[in-house]
Amino acid sequence: MFKRILLPADGSEGAFKALKLAVELRKVHDAELMILSVFRHHSLREASMSMVRPRDPEHMDDLMKSYAREVAESFKRYALEQECPGVRAFVKSGHTAKTIVEFAEKNDVDLIIVGSHGLGEAEQLLVGSVSQKVVGMAKCPVLVV
Amino acid sequence: MFKRILLPADGSEGAFKALKLAVELRKVHDAELMILSVFRHHSLREASMSMVRPRDPEHMDDLMKSYAREVAESFKRYALEQECPGVRAFVKSGHTAKTIVEFAEKNDVDLIIVGSHGLGEAEQLLVGSVSQKVVGMAKCPVLVV
Repeated sequence: MFKRILLPADGSEGAFKALKLAVELRKVHDAELMILSVFRHHSLREASMSMVRPRDPEHMDDLMKSYAREVAESFKRYALEQECPGVRAFVKSGHTAKTIVEFAEKNDVDLIIVGSHGLGEAEQLLVGSVSQKVVGMAKCPVLVV
Repeated sequence: MFKRILLPADGSEGAFKALKLAVELRKVHDAELMILSVFRHHSLREASMSMVRPRDPEHMDDLMKSYAREVAESFKRYALEQECPGVRAFVKSGHTAKTIVEFAEKNDVDLIIVGSHGLGEAEQLLVGSVSQKVVGMAKCPVLVV
């Protein structure tokens, strides 16, 4: 019944838990798995960055993009190791939840799987809020793991 | 992979949409389906009821219980019509989200399916908030339809 599953990957433990379930679910439903890693463009982070003052702010975009790509690729590798043929990984920039939901609509995704908890206590609120936003904005079913 | 699916039934359009998906998903996973209709005990509603002043307040519990049972039974009938053998319906009183999550834990449920939207615009906020609470409190995956 599910034909195309989208897994947003943010490198958190919650997202990895979601990946493991996505790989299982994909098998049962013989569905296609798409992995999406979203990074925020530097200008979108200026407000929060202003306190951090990175030494090399002009390269922040490259760094974030490269991290997002690394996460997407490592998730894809795991999926391939778990016999998940045809898995594809994507990297996009933008507001996280909005980008996930728009990507899902454009690609006829019929299930989004998200983790409910993030890396550590400090990040739980943020990651949880992305999941909540995806649940609220998505037009397809969302599985919160 | 999912062996026991719980569907909270509140008579809303969102819950019926969730039921339809639950019935399909149950087939694919050869899972057991449990339907749970939760009603709030009169004392729990006193605050909101104080504005309504029902003519026969001592019978409010019976009315709510009877409505909850009717919803659970109609959901069960639909599931049986869709070839969903062994479906069971339950009625419990208590705080909605808490009762759903506790029931899931006690019964080794491995997936809860909830609707994202309720009956009408006026109820969306409330029903949405129950779904959100279930997502936040549940120890098993929650599918928001």
